[in-house]
Amino acid sequence: MTRTDLTSLTAPRGFRAAAGAFGIKASGRPDLSLLVADVPCAVAAMFTTNLIASEPVVLGRRHVAAGVCRAVVVNAGNANAATGRQGMADALAMCRAVARRVGCKPTQVLASSTGIIGRRLPMDKILPGIDALASKLAVGPRADADVARAIMTTDTVPKADLVRFRIGGKTVTIGGVCKGSGMIAPNMATMLAFITTDAAIARPALRAALRAAVNADASLNRLSIDQHTSCSDSVVVLASRLAGHRPITSLQSADGRAFTAALTDLCRRLAWRIITDGEGVTRVIRVRVAGAATQADAVRAARAVVDSPLVKCAVHGADPNWGRIVTAAGYSGAKIAPRSTSLKIGGIRVYEAGQPTNDRLPDVQKAMRRREVVFDLTIGPGPGNCEFLGCDLSRDYITINADYHT
Amino acid sequence: MTRTDLTSLTAPRGFRAAAGAFGIKASGRPDLSLLVADVPCAVAAMFTTNLIASEPVVLGRRHVAAGVCRAVVVNAGNANAATGRQGMADALAMCRAVARRVGCKPTQVLASSTGIIGRRLPMDKILPGIDALASKLAVGPRADADVARAIMTTDTVPKADLVRFRIGGKTVTIGGVCKGSGMIAPNMATMLAFITTDAAIARPALRAALRAAVNADASLNRLSIDQHTSCSDSVVVLASRLAGHRPITSLQSADGRAFTAALTDLCRRLAWRIITDGEGVTRVIRVRVAGAATQADAVRAARAVVDSPLVKCAVHGADPNWGRIVTAAGYSGAKIAPRSTSLKIGGIRVYEAGQPTNDRLPDVQKAMRRREVVFDLTIGPGPGNCEFLGCDLSRDYITINADYHT
Repeated sequence: MTRTDLTSLTAPRGFRAAAGAFGIKASGRPDLSLLVADVPCAVAAMFTTNLIASEPVVLGRRHVAAGVCRAVVVNAGNANAATGRQGMADALAMCRAVARRVGCKPTQVLASSTGIIGRRLPMDKILPGIDALASKLAVGPRADADVARAIMTTDTVPKADLVRFRIGGKTVTIGGVCKGSGMIAPNMATMLAFITTDAAIARPALRAALRAAVNADASLNRLSIDQHTSCSDSVVVLASRLAGHRPITSLQSADGRAFTAALTDLCRRLAWRIITDGEGVTRVIRVRVAGAATQADAVRAARAVVDSPLVKCAVHGADPNWGRIVTAAGYSGAKIAPRSTSLKIGGIRVYEAGQPTNDRLPDVQKAMRRREVVFDLTIGPGPGNCEFLGCDLSRDYITINADYHT
Repeated sequence: MTRTDLTSLTAPRGFRAAAGAFGIKASGRPDLSLLVADVPCAVAAMFTTNLIASEPVVLGRRHVAAGVCRAVVVNAGNANAATGRQGMADALAMCRAVARRVGCKPTQVLASSTGIIGRRLPMDKILPGIDALASKLAVGPRADADVARAIMTTDTVPKADLVRFRIGGKTVTIGGVCKGSGMIAPNMATMLAFITTDAAIARPALRAALRAAVNADASLNRLSIDQHTSCSDSVVVLASRLAGHRPITSLQSADGRAFTAALTDLCRRLAWRIITDGEGVTRVIRVRVAGAATQADAVRAARAVVDSPLVKCAVHGADPNWGRIVTAAGYSGAKIAPRSTSLKIGGIRVYEAGQPTNDRLPDVQKAMRRREVVFDLTIGPGPGNCEFLGCDLSRDYITINADYHT
């Protein structure tokens, strides 16, 4: 079961991890993970924009604001969301239990939960689980793979990745795990992603780098499986600062740019792992919007395209029904005029400056049978652009989500 | 084939209609309709907010602004959308052909088209069709039923309705037909709806009454099948003013209120016919949002709920997974706080002031097995509220839309 390509969270210096099965999931699969840093870490995080945020997210915002993090505890099988006062008490109890074992303050612990919404956490399983995991923290691919597996819900594969680069002769490592397969339409961050690095970096720079990386083209905030922004979305990065190079204080420096580029690379890899494992997905949609009045408009148009059930069904059926793509941009709220709108599918022009060009539809159909279908959509003469990932809509998505009973 | 319950457009005094099959649809089914008024009518219309509006919609806005209407011509099988200059010339040619036969100005004719986007209209079939229909205009249930059938695309049943009421001892009639089954998420109006009345009503009052009726709870602008706002959405009302009562100039008068109420009743009936014939629909969702800061916020929250694929799948599977409903409102953009949020499903409380109440989930599941599932969602202490219609998401929706090849 141990796959070395899942090497991730404990690859940077200063991190240990453990995960196991404690009966939170009815299936008996692994469901609790603990990540502990040997030293106080700089922490940055992006959480869901959903106004009904889960209780761990509400608590996590406060703990991240405190500025230092030593540990992250994650359970799957129960989201501890829409659980009110009891849910908040339970999230805090998780942080306290970890803090006691690690020897830090509860505010230096982040708790994260994913699974069914609106049910009380089984604390009688979680608290003994935290104790058990605290005794078997380890470094290495096996621990990393265990965590990647224990944060899964409807995911069919564990998702982790790693990037390495050099600053001033020293190797810097960034490792990440994530989960997410349904309820994926991040609007700030994606489902759950945890990232560790040994880069020496000041907290403001870490925060800015995370924001840039998550909002980059085709990254964690530029994908949608089913437009439903979860109440639990969280991307967290911990920096142990043990890599030994001169600290990064500005992202404008060469080192700062190198760090942001590496973190962006990692976030894009994680995003790709999420979209390709989307519920029922058979094809990935990559939409590149250009010419928008603003970047926000580009994102609006791209999201409307990848979230349209009609576009998703057309891609599922490899149907070159391009009017659905253009009209989705038309209702997106982005500024768009037919006369300055053009569309290519798989590099083939189908609509140019408001006029249809249908002469190569059989080739378009062929391009739509690929595993990845690319839309190049220009909606005006503006400077705004973005690249966004989506997926098709299949009968399997419905099977998974009509029958995932509560 | 003649069903008297489809009596509609020619029931008010002053209207004749005809429809037939002219080869615009590959299936050979009826595809062209003509409605002609004996007298110049007051006209009001609401069109799509999609910025990629179809060419007939762009032309229709101008003709409605001219203020008087004598005829409406509608083809199905081809939307004449995203067709540019050629499409505009074709829409105008349809109006001219009708005007010649009716003896009016082309600006007094509305053309409307629905079907595949991005293809040129087969004018060689449409122009002779207009001539043929102009020779067989008639009054009565048969003509009305023919029109209801000839405007259909993926609809499985023709949709028409009729309301009658009295003003000053005179009977006033309002008849309507509509079509729409997919690409239904009106944001101003719904797919295509044509309404006639013999009410004597001034144009500004007619316009205001139409807006109120279309935006009423559970009416034509308060439903979504698949969130994709069409480029062709149009609701048009023609008033022949032949009913013989004293003209309505203000909606604040008793007669004005009676007219608005009757028109609203008709629009709600048409909306119900559309949602129950939605593509692949097995269950209707009726969501009542209350306590919103504004009515716009109430509509935002309601739309997010009925458009969430996860909510739609839960309803399809009769799964009381209420966390999906609450979190959809949470990402809707509406102001909402967990502590003031409550939800009932089928009248049974599941979430109250931010606390879960899961003790009656088996009853909730039973309520979700009904043909119509009702959500009562309170999102705050505000005055904003609305009632919105949606539907479940089934495998049949995907079959219809992945295989509806272009």
